[in-house]
Amino acid sequence: MKKIINNPENVVDEMLNGLVKGYPNKVKRLENTNVIARYDKKESKVGIISGGGSGHEPAHAGYVGYGMLDCAVCGEVFTSPTPDQILEAIKEANSGKGVFMVVKNYTGDVLNFDMAKELAEAEDIDVDYIIVNDDVAVEDSEFTSGRRGIAGTVFFHKVLGAMAEEGKSLEEIKKEAEKLVKSIRSMGMAIKPCVQPQVGKESFHLEENEMEIGIGIHGEAGIRKEEIKPANEITKELADTILEEFDNLDEVCVMVNGMGQTPLMELYIVNNFLNDYLKDKNIKIYKSYVGNYMTSIDMAGYSITIFKVEDQEKKYLDAKADTVFLKEI
Amino acid sequence: MKKIINNPENVVDEMLNGLVKGYPNKVKRLENTNVIARYDKKESKVGIISGGGSGHEPAHAGYVGYGMLDCAVCGEVFTSPTPDQILEAIKEANSGKGVFMVVKNYTGDVLNFDMAKELAEAEDIDVDYIIVNDDVAVEDSEFTSGRRGIAGTVFFHKVLGAMAEEGKSLEEIKKEAEKLVKSIRSMGMAIKPCVQPQVGKESFHLEENEMEIGIGIHGEAGIRKEEIKPANEITKELADTILEEFDNLDEVCVMVNGMGQTPLMELYIVNNFLNDYLKDKNIKIYKSYVGNYMTSIDMAGYSITIFKVEDQEKKYLDAKADTVFLKEI
Repeated sequence: MKKIINNPENVVDEMLNGLVKGYPNKVKRLENTNVIARYDKKESKVGIISGGGSGHEPAHAGYVGYGMLDCAVCGEVFTSPTPDQILEAIKEANSGKGVFMVVKNYTGDVLNFDMAKELAEAEDIDVDYIIVNDDVAVEDSEFTSGRRGIAGTVFFHKVLGAMAEEGKSLEEIKKEAEKLVKSIRSMGMAIKPCVQPQVGKESFHLEENEMEIGIGIHGEAGIRKEEIKPANEITKELADTILEEFDNLDEVCVMVNGMGQTPLMELYIVNNFLNDYLKDKNIKIYKSYVGNYMTSIDMAGYSITIFKVEDQEKKYLDAKADTVFLKEI
Repeated sequence: MKKIINNPENVVDEMLNGLVKGYPNKVKRLENTNVIARYDKKESKVGIISGGGSGHEPAHAGYVGYGMLDCAVCGEVFTSPTPDQILEAIKEANSGKGVFMVVKNYTGDVLNFDMAKELAEAEDIDVDYIIVNDDVAVEDSEFTSGRRGIAGTVFFHKVLGAMAEEGKSLEEIKKEAEKLVKSIRSMGMAIKPCVQPQVGKESFHLEENEMEIGIGIHGEAGIRKEEIKPANEITKELADTILEEFDNLDEVCVMVNGMGQTPLMELYIVNNFLNDYLKDKNIKIYKSYVGNYMTSIDMAGYSITIFKVEDQEKKYLDAKADTVFLKEI
């Protein structure tokens, strides 16, 4: 294992401190927790929180700030945060209007966020949540019952965060979240697996000429291995699989998301094909997001997300945000 | 070679098209060139351009936009753009107040940008430039006479771009650029070399336990190989080498720059140490930049940049920018 770290046991702690020291005017770490919170807590709005295992940077702590998340709860690498940590985030994000949680569909996350909801309700805090399951590659997998939540989650942060900033209620946010679940679909691939710092070896094996289609973001293998193809052919397969999920598509946002080790050059090459491919099908592209939005440590690969948008979503995607990683102006 | 591409010969062309298709409201590609220009050309200001070989994404095309560059000239991978391409960028960026060029110190770039200056002057366009040589690792190298220009270049784009937006003259911008040359120092390391698409093999070799100190951004080897150490020890060495270059440091900006394949997790771990280390020396940190700002395709490693700032630099660093990759609000 070759990594630029100190001690594999301390990566999350040092990473969170390095983030907060780098951006002290934007984020803070709640004492004795792995919760990253907005430095300027805004009162009188629904709190929006997310979280999950670490290793997906910039998700989710990079999306804490004005117009997106109030808190991110950071578990150990690929490990769900505990209910007591999530409860701390709920308390911090609460300003009397309730807290909404964006939860990726992994068994551990779903259990722990749900338990935290119960703990918070016992303290008279209104809490609701959505389970994000945008990955069309698999129905069930190593860590999940049902479809997994992957990079499309970032669109939930942006749209719901902007709604909360505008003063929308917990009920209105939940209703939009349920719409987003039906509007956002993703699928990914890898040419190199990731290595968890505490494990020290590859999470699956690929030969020099092989790629893996349908990977998740926790080092789990995908649906099949095959010989690596040109970028356009791979992108066509991912896009076709996603497009089958939608009845009709008028206008979309697309995300080409790097898995951590993929050069921007390759992501733009993917976007070059994807953009033309959708336009050839008379699908309008409202906005593109090309970069590392939700990674899997040092996996090499990418995912595509297609997000069916209407006026409401476009408005909130364009709303001002000011986080460490994502800004819209 | 494992890459998500179509044809190694077309990577730059497809990448530039993928960028412009993704962000059509921000950037455009000048016809029959590899020049990326602002979509909304602003009149009546000094034009700011930069460029060089491709493979350093998001540099430089990701910094084209309001408050930074007017044009980026993109050569083939690790290959200087030709004078006629640079001339096209100069013409596009010119609105009668002259054009200032930010040139990294590589022999090919220096020759070609200087030749483009002469061609532009023959067409009555005022042109001046600065040679960025922030890398303290080596005095001369494979591609350069004198010190190389690396990630610190991005600070030139930000400060000089903001000055131009504010209406400063070519002379004022040149004067500040000369101050920046003395204020910005960088040094990098790698645990894995990069692979150029058209070459197909590693640019140097490292054993499983080795790292390379003092690497450049064109796949050239560094100053020495040694056994990989903990992140804090490596960071201390890089920081100490840089700090020796400054007489006294009151306040700085720091950049922890990933080389393309380095997870954000590792960059934050580096920043965690670097931040404490500078504070222990009573150096104030005005602002931190942690991410992939100037890469070397898929090299794994990082560089540190220390930028001595005074009020003028702080003001321009905080000024509004709106580019594909960097925004300040």
